[in-house]
Amino acid sequence: MPQSDSGLSFRVIHRDGEARAGEMITPHGVVRTPAFAPVGTRGAVKGLTHRDVVGLGAEIVLANTYHLELRPGARLVARAGGLHRFIGWDRPILTDSGGYQVFSLGDRRTIDEDGVSFRSHLDGSRQRLTPESATDIQARLGSDVAMAFDECTSFPASGAEAEASMRRTLRWARRSRARFLALRDDPGRLRGEVTNPGQAQFGIVQGSVYEGLRAASARATTALGFEGYAIGGLSVGEPVDVMYRVVAGTARLLPDDRVRYLMGTGMPDDLVESVAAGIDLFDCVLPTRNARNGQLLTRGGPLSIKRAEFADDARPPDPGCRCYTCRRYSRAYLRYLHVAGEMTGRTLNTLHNLHFYLDTMRRMREAILFGTFESFRQRFHETFSRRPRS
Amino acid sequence: MPQSDSGLSFRVIHRDGEARAGEMITPHGVVRTPAFAPVGTRGAVKGLTHRDVVGLGAEIVLANTYHLELRPGARLVARAGGLHRFIGWDRPILTDSGGYQVFSLGDRRTIDEDGVSFRSHLDGSRQRLTPESATDIQARLGSDVAMAFDECTSFPASGAEAEASMRRTLRWARRSRARFLALRDDPGRLRGEVTNPGQAQFGIVQGSVYEGLRAASARATTALGFEGYAIGGLSVGEPVDVMYRVVAGTARLLPDDRVRYLMGTGMPDDLVESVAAGIDLFDCVLPTRNARNGQLLTRGGPLSIKRAEFADDARPPDPGCRCYTCRRYSRAYLRYLHVAGEMTGRTLNTLHNLHFYLDTMRRMREAILFGTFESFRQRFHETFSRRPRS
Repeated sequence: MPQSDSGLSFRVIHRDGEARAGEMITPHGVVRTPAFAPVGTRGAVKGLTHRDVVGLGAEIVLANTYHLELRPGARLVARAGGLHRFIGWDRPILTDSGGYQVFSLGDRRTIDEDGVSFRSHLDGSRQRLTPESATDIQARLGSDVAMAFDECTSFPASGAEAEASMRRTLRWARRSRARFLALRDDPGRLRGEVTNPGQAQFGIVQGSVYEGLRAASARATTALGFEGYAIGGLSVGEPVDVMYRVVAGTARLLPDDRVRYLMGTGMPDDLVESVAAGIDLFDCVLPTRNARNGQLLTRGGPLSIKRAEFADDARPPDPGCRCYTCRRYSRAYLRYLHVAGEMTGRTLNTLHNLHFYLDTMRRMREAILFGTFESFRQRFHETFSRRPRS
Repeated sequence: MPQSDSGLSFRVIHRDGEARAGEMITPHGVVRTPAFAPVGTRGAVKGLTHRDVVGLGAEIVLANTYHLELRPGARLVARAGGLHRFIGWDRPILTDSGGYQVFSLGDRRTIDEDGVSFRSHLDGSRQRLTPESATDIQARLGSDVAMAFDECTSFPASGAEAEASMRRTLRWARRSRARFLALRDDPGRLRGEVTNPGQAQFGIVQGSVYEGLRAASARATTALGFEGYAIGGLSVGEPVDVMYRVVAGTARLLPDDRVRYLMGTGMPDDLVESVAAGIDLFDCVLPTRNARNGQLLTRGGPLSIKRAEFADDARPPDPGCRCYTCRRYSRAYLRYLHVAGEMTGRTLNTLHNLHFYLDTMRRMREAILFGTFESFRQRFHETFSRRPRS
């Protein structure tokens, strides 16, 4: 089976309800699940050095195929020996397929059955991505987990639109998988540019908010034998209860012995609910992007550090938090740095937010291992509120 | 003598020619000299966290009175318990007097005998600094070393202009010192806002490039009994050999048992030549600012990381360097981060440049202690060239 051919394996160590604690073993080390992958869009988590990211306990990061292909180019990365060597990060890396970024380009892209044509956001140059080229690019990057090239269905979508989009994603999944397996059989097809022979590939389930479409997508995608499965097309504007319903409904249709990855989500309470539904892996720009915008995520909920009331506030952002930022700095200083536009403020906020996310994942894993996940979940929701804290 | 009243003491441990290795003891710890103070203009070294700065081995940082008074305001800092507590840095801090920034404002400021009126670069509001208010502001900030309020003579200046400016600096030095001593005698004058009772105050020698004026300034300034002495008004456009001549000529006129501080200088070879002339302490924005602009300073000289030839260069910026950046990252990656505008690139470049500066200081100190400073100096100049490296 593909699982043994790829360098990736996954096992569930403990279950608590639908929640799972597991281990994803990759060519660059183990990721203990449930896990959160900080986003390093262009090969760096914005504002942090890799040692900061390692210090936070991150075991995997995400990098974006679209951005890296446009600059510096996957061929340059391959010449450097792959993304791990190029960026100097020796732990696991997950790359998206580029599909999501391309679809976000709006009228700068056109989709046909073969793939997507678009203009670079950097220089307006004409570019093209297909299931095959997105697979090749990721082979050059040499991530540990590559993603099949999918069409991210926009929201809202009618049933017919969602079905057409889901079917196209399926056809593209077959082509992505065929290309991936062909490269695995004969890496020479890329003339020495396959930089991680143990790379795994995950398929993506689409189908918008329609239960029947999600089920059909899950059935057909899992039949292709990917090493893991992602749920795509969520956190795109749908109400949160709808998202929870789709996650729960889809997760249970995915193979029990493969990683389940919820793409691009979300707020901390989304992660808790999704782990409860059996999700193992997450990525999201929210903790890092919001940090740079001055929004700290704490156990009590979001805290906007720019508020004038914090000008003289000597308390740490989250008094219960053990992160470097909260152990060392006051709200007053962080507010000042934010208002002054100091880079260091963005770094300190990012350290806090990622610590909160990664720590929440660790707490969830521990609760699952101890069989106390339900009480963790209840306590979490009792404390955390999405409404900004005063 | 004032030396014992202030929390600052200084002793020379070893000499090698004019070069000195010493210890400056402050209320927040020891600074081993010769020492370089990274610039944290607004209470943060741009792009670094304090733990990064400590990890680099910095024993003192500089913060700018002008910037901190405009925002967040020294009174707010005093309410937080002083600058150390406000910014979460527990090692020594040196503050400038604000004079240099104010004079840099050009036509946004007017000078009279009492002080300087200017418009804030932030919001255009009318502001005023005098020797007394600059002293009060620094008392509120509670730095370990405060500076007398001086007029930084511009370059070039005629002998008459330079003398007038130097005489004004002297009159302002007397007022700065009087105010400082009055606050030391009775901190209650600032109604609880004096946050570091052990603060020391340094006088500043001016006189442009004129030997006689420098001598007169040194004589009259040292007569005021400051805890240490700075050489100001250099690195303002004069030729480098002129600067070296003025530094050497002035340093020998300063008391042997007090810290000698060369303000706002300079390139690495400037530091070596100034240590050779008997300087103990430096600050300069160059390593941090140039890092953000993509100029790395190495043993061989400056290296502009943005050059296209580095796109595929797997070597570290400086193969002989032991800093985190050079141990972990390639020129190719740093070039890419710079071109992509990633914050992390600015951070990594800053870590390298400050390491190079601080390491150069440590090597100089060691050479002085071993009596091998002259051979260090020769080897340094054989390797280091100001011309950009290819």
